[in-house]
Amino acid sequence: MAQSPTTTRLMIAASEADANLFWATRFLAPDPIIFLEHKKKRYLVLNDLEVDRGKKEAQVDRVLSYSEIEKKLGKKTGQRASISDVIAALLHSLRIRQVTVPAGFPLALAMQLQKKKFKVLPKGDPFYEERVLKTQAEKAAIRQSLRYTSEAIQSAYQALRETKIKKNRLYYRGAVLTSERLRGIINLHLMSRNCLGKHTIVAGGEQAVDPHCEGHGPLKPHQAIVMDVFPKSMDTQYYADMTRTVVKGHASEALRKMWNAVKQAQENAMKKIRAGVNGKAIHEEIHRRFEELGYKTGRVKGRMQGFFHGTGHGLGLDIHEAPRVSKISEILKAGTVVTVEPGLYYSGIGGVRIEDVVYVQKNGCEVLSKCPKILEIS
Amino acid sequence: MAQSPTTTRLMIAASEADANLFWATRFLAPDPIIFLEHKKKRYLVLNDLEVDRGKKEAQVDRVLSYSEIEKKLGKKTGQRASISDVIAALLHSLRIRQVTVPAGFPLALAMQLQKKKFKVLPKGDPFYEERVLKTQAEKAAIRQSLRYTSEAIQSAYQALRETKIKKNRLYYRGAVLTSERLRGIINLHLMSRNCLGKHTIVAGGEQAVDPHCEGHGPLKPHQAIVMDVFPKSMDTQYYADMTRTVVKGHASEALRKMWNAVKQAQENAMKKIRAGVNGKAIHEEIHRRFEELGYKTGRVKGRMQGFFHGTGHGLGLDIHEAPRVSKISEILKAGTVVTVEPGLYYSGIGGVRIEDVVYVQKNGCEVLSKCPKILEIS
Repeated sequence: MAQSPTTTRLMIAASEADANLFWATRFLAPDPIIFLEHKKKRYLVLNDLEVDRGKKEAQVDRVLSYSEIEKKLGKKTGQRASISDVIAALLHSLRIRQVTVPAGFPLALAMQLQKKKFKVLPKGDPFYEERVLKTQAEKAAIRQSLRYTSEAIQSAYQALRETKIKKNRLYYRGAVLTSERLRGIINLHLMSRNCLGKHTIVAGGEQAVDPHCEGHGPLKPHQAIVMDVFPKSMDTQYYADMTRTVVKGHASEALRKMWNAVKQAQENAMKKIRAGVNGKAIHEEIHRRFEELGYKTGRVKGRMQGFFHGTGHGLGLDIHEAPRVSKISEILKAGTVVTVEPGLYYSGIGGVRIEDVVYVQKNGCEVLSKCPKILEIS
Repeated sequence: MAQSPTTTRLMIAASEADANLFWATRFLAPDPIIFLEHKKKRYLVLNDLEVDRGKKEAQVDRVLSYSEIEKKLGKKTGQRASISDVIAALLHSLRIRQVTVPAGFPLALAMQLQKKKFKVLPKGDPFYEERVLKTQAEKAAIRQSLRYTSEAIQSAYQALRETKIKKNRLYYRGAVLTSERLRGIINLHLMSRNCLGKHTIVAGGEQAVDPHCEGHGPLKPHQAIVMDVFPKSMDTQYYADMTRTVVKGHASEALRKMWNAVKQAQENAMKKIRAGVNGKAIHEEIHRRFEELGYKTGRVKGRMQGFFHGTGHGLGLDIHEAPRVSKISEILKAGTVVTVEPGLYYSGIGGVRIEDVVYVQKNGCEVLSKCPKILEIS
C-alpha cells in the first residue's frame, strides 16, 4: 500500500460501515474502533470484545487494548478516561501533534481533540487515493459479485417467463406477481451466494419513472419493469451494481424506442470510456444524444423527467465511490471501476435504465458484468 | 413528537445508514440528504433523484429541491454552489445562526459552516431523547423482527436435528455441516421474511470463546455452538437480536454447568429489570454471581475469558442504541427496549451466550422474544 510517509491518519468508525477503515485494515467490526497510521505503521485500538480477533485478523502492524490504556489513564487521574483521552494518550506516546481525518470524522470527537491541542485536518474523499485504483484481487471480487447478481436477475427473467398474463394482471405460480415477490426471488438467490441485496429495485409502470422507487404492489403486463440490483458480498465486502429493464408481454412503440435509445447510449459510452477521458464529456454526450432524439430533461407537471441522474459512479467497498461519471468534471484513471447506467423516465411511457460495470484501462474498458439484455419476455 | 421548540437541529447523512435521520423523517435515502428542524417544522433538501419520492414519502413539513437552491446561488455568484453554500442559504432564509448537530456530524462540513459564521453544536446520543422510548408501533415492529428471528433459529435447530454424527464430524444432507452452511439456513429464512441477516454468528468450539467471531469451517459434535442472530427488517427498518447456544450430541459436565449458570443469570436479570433500576446494578450482580460460582473474568494466557462484555443494549432502528446495561451507570426508563445477554467464555470449555429482548415497564419487563432454550440436540 503506497502512501505518503508524512501523513498521519486517524479514523474512528465501525469498519463494517466504513469502507476506508475496512480497506486499511481488512478487519470487520460492528462498533467504532480506533485506527491510526503513522510513519507507515498502522495501529488499531480495540475493546476487550474485539482485541483477540483483531490480533488474528486485522492487517495492521499493532493491535492495542483499549481497556489497558483506559485503565492506565484511570490510575493516573482517578477518573474514567474518555475515548478522546485514550486517543490523546496514543498520539502523545508517538509524539504526534497533527492528524489527517476523513471529512466525515465525528465533529464532537474532533472538538475534544482540538481542546487537547491536537490539530485535526479533514480530508475529502478519496481519503486513500490508492483505494480508487482496484487491485486484481479487488477486480476479481467485484466480478464475482456481478456474476451472482447476473444469476439473480436471470432468476427473475425465469420467473417472468413462467408468469401468465390474465387480462391486466400477472400470475406467478398461482399468485398475483408483485414487486415484492420478484424482489424476493432476486434477494433469495443473492443470499444463497452470501450476497446481501438491500433495497433491490423492482419497479414497474409509473413507479419506475422515479429512479429510486423500490417498487411495491402488483406488476402489470406490457409495462417496463426496472430491476436495479446492487448487493454486497458478505464474503468479500465488494459490491455489484446492475440494472436491466424488461417487459412481460409487449412493449409499446414509444417504450421500445426509449429502450433502444438507452441501450445505444450505454454502448456508445462504453466505447468511449478509457483512461484519460473526462467523465463529464461522456455524461454530456449521452445528454446531447438523448436531446437529439427528442428526449428532453426537466421538470414536467412538477415532476423530473428525462435523464436526470449521473451516468455512472465508482464501485468497490462502497456502492457509490470515486470516480463519478456525471456533470462534474473528473478524469477517469486506468484501474478504476465504474458503472455505466444511462436512463430515461417519462410519465405515461415508463422508466428505462440499463447498467453495467466496467474496468477502465489505458486503451478502453473491460465490461465486468455479463447479463442478457432483453426488452420483452413472452 | 415532543421536542424542545428552541433547538434547531441539522443533520446530513444517508438516512438508510442513520437511524436518527430515518426516525425523524421516515424517509429512506441511500445517499446523504439535508435535514433541518426549526421551530417545530421539519425540512428536507433533496436532489433531483429523490425530491419527488421525498414529497410522497417523507414525514416532514417541507421538501425543498437541492438543485433549485444550487441554481439560484450559482446565478448570483457565477460559481457552482457547494453543499455548505446550499445549507447556509437555507439557514439564512430562516434567520438561523446556530444549529445542534449529532456528535458524529461530518467535521469538514461543520468547519465550512463555522467559516460562514454559524455556530455548530454537537450533541451526543440520544440525539432525540424521545427515540429511546418506543411507541407501540415500534414495539410491534421489534416483536415482529424477533418472531422471524426465532423462526430462523428454530430452522437451525431443525437442521441440527437432521444432522448425523459420524466420529468427530457432523453431516447434514450428505455434506459436512459447517458454520457457513448453518448460517446460510438462518439467513435464507430471514430473507424469506424480508429481514437482513448480516454477520450472523454461528461459531462452535474454541471459535465461540471469542464473542464476535462469526464462525467458519466444520462444526463439531459435543461442542457448544453459539448462534447470535440480529437481522434488520427491510419492511420496518427495526432490528431483532437473539442468541441461543446449543450442542449437537452431548455437553460436557463443565459446559452444562456453565450453560445453566448463564441461563439462570439471564432469568435473574429479567426478574430485576424495571423502570428506575440502574443497568449497572443488573450488570454487576451478574458479574458477582458468576464470580461466586467460580467463573472469573480476566486475561488468561493472553486471552480474555469469563464475562467480558455488557449485559445488554438498547435495540430499535440501531442494533446498538441507548440505553446500555453495562458497567456504566444508566437508569432504565419505562418504554425502553433492551437486550439481556449474559455470556461465559472459557478456552477448553467453550462459549455460552443466551440473549433475549425485553420491554421495560413500570413494574417489571415484558419479554418480546420467544424461542426455546435447548442445550442438547440429539
